[in-house]
Amino acid sequence: MTAPTPAPTLATTPPTLQSFVQDRWVTPAHGLAAIRSAIDGRVVAFASSDGVDFSAAVRHARTIGGPALRALTFHERADRLKALATFLSERKEQLYALSADTGATKRDNLFDIDGGIGTLFAYASRGRRELPAERFVIDGDTEPLSRGGTFVGLHVMTPLNGVAVHINAFNFPCWGMLEKLAPAILAGVPVITKPATATAYVAEAVVRLIVEAELLPKGALQLVCGAAGDLLDHLGGQDVVSFTGSADTSDRLRNHPVIGRNAVRFIAERDSLNAAVLGPDASPGAPEFDLFVKEVVREMSVKAGQKCTAIRRVVVPRPLEATVIDAIKAQLDKITVGDPRHDEVRMGPLASLSQRAAVREAVADLLTEAEIVAGDPLVAAPIGGDMATGAFMAPVLLACADPLAARRVHTVEPFGPVATVMPYDTLDEAVAIVAKGEGSLVASVFTHDDRVADALVFGLAPFHGRVLIVDRDCAKESTGHGSPLPGLVHGGPGRAGGGEEMGGLRGVFHYMQRTALQGSPARLAALTRRWLKGAPAPVAAVHPFKRDYEGLAVGDTVETDSRQITIADIEHFADFTGDAFYAHMDEAAAKANPFFPGRVAHGYLILSFAAGLFVDPAPGPLLANYGLDNLRFLKPVSPGDAIKVRLTVKEKRPARKPDYGEVRWDVEVFNQDGETVARYDLLTMSARRDAASSAAAA
Amino acid sequence: MTAPTPAPTLATTPPTLQSFVQDRWVTPAHGLAAIRSAIDGRVVAFASSDGVDFSAAVRHARTIGGPALRALTFHERADRLKALATFLSERKEQLYALSADTGATKRDNLFDIDGGIGTLFAYASRGRRELPAERFVIDGDTEPLSRGGTFVGLHVMTPLNGVAVHINAFNFPCWGMLEKLAPAILAGVPVITKPATATAYVAEAVVRLIVEAELLPKGALQLVCGAAGDLLDHLGGQDVVSFTGSADTSDRLRNHPVIGRNAVRFIAERDSLNAAVLGPDASPGAPEFDLFVKEVVREMSVKAGQKCTAIRRVVVPRPLEATVIDAIKAQLDKITVGDPRHDEVRMGPLASLSQRAAVREAVADLLTEAEIVAGDPLVAAPIGGDMATGAFMAPVLLACADPLAARRVHTVEPFGPVATVMPYDTLDEAVAIVAKGEGSLVASVFTHDDRVADALVFGLAPFHGRVLIVDRDCAKESTGHGSPLPGLVHGGPGRAGGGEEMGGLRGVFHYMQRTALQGSPARLAALTRRWLKGAPAPVAAVHPFKRDYEGLAVGDTVETDSRQITIADIEHFADFTGDAFYAHMDEAAAKANPFFPGRVAHGYLILSFAAGLFVDPAPGPLLANYGLDNLRFLKPVSPGDAIKVRLTVKEKRPARKPDYGEVRWDVEVFNQDGETVARYDLLTMSARRDAASSAAAA
Repeated sequence: MTAPTPAPTLATTPPTLQSFVQDRWVTPAHGLAAIRSAIDGRVVAFASSDGVDFSAAVRHARTIGGPALRALTFHERADRLKALATFLSERKEQLYALSADTGATKRDNLFDIDGGIGTLFAYASRGRRELPAERFVIDGDTEPLSRGGTFVGLHVMTPLNGVAVHINAFNFPCWGMLEKLAPAILAGVPVITKPATATAYVAEAVVRLIVEAELLPKGALQLVCGAAGDLLDHLGGQDVVSFTGSADTSDRLRNHPVIGRNAVRFIAERDSLNAAVLGPDASPGAPEFDLFVKEVVREMSVKAGQKCTAIRRVVVPRPLEATVIDAIKAQLDKITVGDPRHDEVRMGPLASLSQRAAVREAVADLLTEAEIVAGDPLVAAPIGGDMATGAFMAPVLLACADPLAARRVHTVEPFGPVATVMPYDTLDEAVAIVAKGEGSLVASVFTHDDRVADALVFGLAPFHGRVLIVDRDCAKESTGHGSPLPGLVHGGPGRAGGGEEMGGLRGVFHYMQRTALQGSPARLAALTRRWLKGAPAPVAAVHPFKRDYEGLAVGDTVETDSRQITIADIEHFADFTGDAFYAHMDEAAAKANPFFPGRVAHGYLILSFAAGLFVDPAPGPLLANYGLDNLRFLKPVSPGDAIKVRLTVKEKRPARKPDYGEVRWDVEVFNQDGETVARYDLLTMSARRDAASSAAAA
Repeated sequence: MTAPTPAPTLATTPPTLQSFVQDRWVTPAHGLAAIRSAIDGRVVAFASSDGVDFSAAVRHARTIGGPALRALTFHERADRLKALATFLSERKEQLYALSADTGATKRDNLFDIDGGIGTLFAYASRGRRELPAERFVIDGDTEPLSRGGTFVGLHVMTPLNGVAVHINAFNFPCWGMLEKLAPAILAGVPVITKPATATAYVAEAVVRLIVEAELLPKGALQLVCGAAGDLLDHLGGQDVVSFTGSADTSDRLRNHPVIGRNAVRFIAERDSLNAAVLGPDASPGAPEFDLFVKEVVREMSVKAGQKCTAIRRVVVPRPLEATVIDAIKAQLDKITVGDPRHDEVRMGPLASLSQRAAVREAVADLLTEAEIVAGDPLVAAPIGGDMATGAFMAPVLLACADPLAARRVHTVEPFGPVATVMPYDTLDEAVAIVAKGEGSLVASVFTHDDRVADALVFGLAPFHGRVLIVDRDCAKESTGHGSPLPGLVHGGPGRAGGGEEMGGLRGVFHYMQRTALQGSPARLAALTRRWLKGAPAPVAAVHPFKRDYEGLAVGDTVETDSRQITIADIEHFADFTGDAFYAHMDEAAAKANPFFPGRVAHGYLILSFAAGLFVDPAPGPLLANYGLDNLRFLKPVSPGDAIKVRLTVKEKRPARKPDYGEVRWDVEVFNQDGETVARYDLLTMSARRDAASSAAAA
């Protein structure tokens, strides 16, 4: 047995946590609550929000933080997040040390500390890649609203002019804070974050680092350690509350009179009784059987089962029930419980003695409908700790014989290392059993059978924010049942709270207002910096390809000469490229085709001749055509037709390197009658005027 | 003066409205409330929801209507909506006749009856065009979740397995019902609709027609005339409440314990104090000045100002205030008030005497901060009616001298022909004045100046669901300040309720659950019927271009031979097409370009040769290549390189005509080292096997 790492110095002089409000650290004088170590019950910190002026905090966010964030573009905000993630990453060891007292093992820290920092990195990268270098986002396509085309619509998203209030759960003090912070800051909305008091010392340490980094603008982040006081009283329709925790607290907050009256956006992620379903094909010997057992055990033990996403319901084909229970039992027997600073400990204590009491009470409640088949809620043999002062508990597996008739096993959540096995007879029954949970964050399905997967996944989808399908093909790289990911939606309907977080940019848009704009194409193009059909398209005196990125204006247009396409051109192109499709080569066969009047030019011939018409051959600021979007051939081109092209700058976007910018051109190819034969977006890379100087600076 | 159209027969024997629950008409026996004509106060109908079993109604929707709707594809649901719209359109005259007693003029009917039917048509068309012939929708792109590519993510939307409860306002009994019904039915969610009692006889008549049409499945639509009883008690996390009406009622419903506890989705559109802002450039003489005055007057008088979207706050540059007031007054003087069945009447009565009393009370409240500058809330000279029995009221214009200091003019809503003029000094101040409304459904901006538009539109956007910019360029075709449109979001933050309806498919997705799926590419491809990288791509024995639509399976693949691209090919292509861009023609200049190692092949040459490699020349089921999406040139192709192509069926979609189907192919072009040089989606039209028989049937 290795010696435990010495406890951090705070063991001797428990600090009083401070709040960070109005860009000042506030020390509470009254109402201090003691926070105790999950390992041995000693006091590790005191907390209280005494001295915090919540009204002033909200005002500070609105008047200082919001305007400062909104003055930055998405790319600038993304850059700050990236720098912040790097800063925290270099200092994460000190956070690991603090986390032990929450009961977190090294493996748990990977989820909490590294996972939180990873989410910052992920949003930084998305912001750069997927958002414009602007302060608004265009959402969707132009809506034609009139026959004449002089009146059109377009949706934009702009940051709410309020504050994001984040009320977090105790189990992931770092990740829980950062996964909410990143989308809000990227959206341009300042944050007031309130960690759960039980583990607030970790959150406070993270905020200290963030403040030290001086990367976020003033007012962008405030921290409340202790109770939320009258914070909600000050919120209005531009504010967002994002809550993670129990259904009771969620309900209380959501029913705060201000929330309804002012239509404050309220996002809730609540504990839910997530299920894992074993497919009938996955019998012992199939890889999916072993993967299932391993995942159930992992979800019961990681973070001592204190995860909103943990597997609580283990749904298995009735014939496999006994085998599954035996297999899980065998694995659970190997789970070592104890002080997480011991290397051989696989599962730490629960967050507190009261948390353990609550879990034991929930288990007792479940025993009215289920029986214990492994473990004992009262008995454990913790390594390096004792049951009286440390919140240790062994994993407990239950089994419920009639899950369709039962109720509590679907609604009472033991927020600890506890799960219940439930047998099913048909796939429909498996779906019905899971649906009795009335909405969960996540379900996982273990099968290698198409039919089983289809029935279970589409049956379960309406009740879940995430459904994981595990099989032999993905198991090695699977991130697992319990891990929310920045690119995927985290949330779920009903009992899971009805909320949605992350999911890539979806989570950013929760902090923005979608607004339909209506007006003339000229007006909407000027407002959104995106050219749209009907907006002015002035023919430039100089060929736009001769202009550098800065010199190009949205709307700048070139109109080419025309070129006739002859039958000889078509035959030559067919011969040269090998594309001798009958529609180009055989008059009778082409005529029989429902789309063609007779032989027609190749689409690629039209594209190639169009390029021949608009390309400016000499070296210049236009560096490359790197792609093409939304090409549609709208009308056949017959031999003898003549085509000409109009190119208009549609959108500009700085590239990742400071040397170039991406230019999107709206291209329309017309025939001799002015009819559009093809339309597409052409993508080019253009040199920037200050490329040399920026490159030198970089 | 023309004689009024005779009142409908119900004037003599007022009917008792029935509810339509569990696919049966229910006649109330008790608690009948009299509904009175807005014109003359006579009783036009009785209503009560006595006899309605709300629990059974919810169960009926969940067990009969939901499964029946979910068994249909989006296209099938869209077809039903289209047929229904046609059916109603042919019978709309009978609805016009009924509507007169609500106070609606012919112009008002265009909004309510025709607008409602038009929304059904619009959603039918969108469902066909923008949704797949499936029961789920793929949302967004594949999310890579692993280095090796064996574990990926993808979001799908599936219909909630619950019921949509629609609680509607009195002002648009037809449109208000149908604009909610269309997206819900298209999503696959059954509806229980509850019209406001005051105008429920119009809604009941519409539902009678819908039932008569027999186009919706059993259980898909139920109607409650009278009070909502204990309807909400029966809702859960798969249900949606969509409410339109006052803030008070919204608040009461939202705070119903079931809503929070079960996380029932709650969409609210509430009355808001919408603003119209006149730009400082729009002085008298400018077209925008006249447009502004005309729009304010129109919004005050259409539906007697009883619209959630009506202009309540008329925000004008201080120097123009007096001129604006005079111009509005002059127009208001021409508004004839009276029985809407008289041809010369431009504005009908309010919905009821109690509604008029409420408006007068609100005006009295506003008089603490504003003064009346036109009209008198107590005086009107109704044509063909009298003030004692008909709810007539003349338009009233107020002016508030200090709108930044005022509060009531931004929060007290007179839901009738009333608006308040407010002066501003700077654009920031104009935004601040409007923002004091704490969120509205819509704002309009009248300007022809880029700078003014930018400041006002982006200032106002976060506080609104819709912002209309009116100028001389779009005015003729503008649909106006007050008209929500199916393609644009209708809703707004804060006081407007924080909800969102319509907005094209966005409104459909409010009735669906978004779920992240995670698994192997093979699994996700099989589930979603969309091939994705890493999923099996079996090389077909027969060239897939020889297969008809039915014969093609997602994943079917062709791999071509390779072809070398020579310097002669490049020079020949340049010569033939005229595309002599230096990167293809000049070794030294090409080398100087940051993207190219030297002379490279034209992108269009690569595309053309690729087609030459994969095209099957003989006539067959593949009819045409109609487009190309997401083309990216990923690596330059140098002279001497050889390319080959892999084509895989990515997605199939039936076309509008039954003769063809659209096939999307994933195309990857490789060089001799197996590196990807280009990637794109190729779009083709393929013949359907049963084309002849379907065409005959059609």
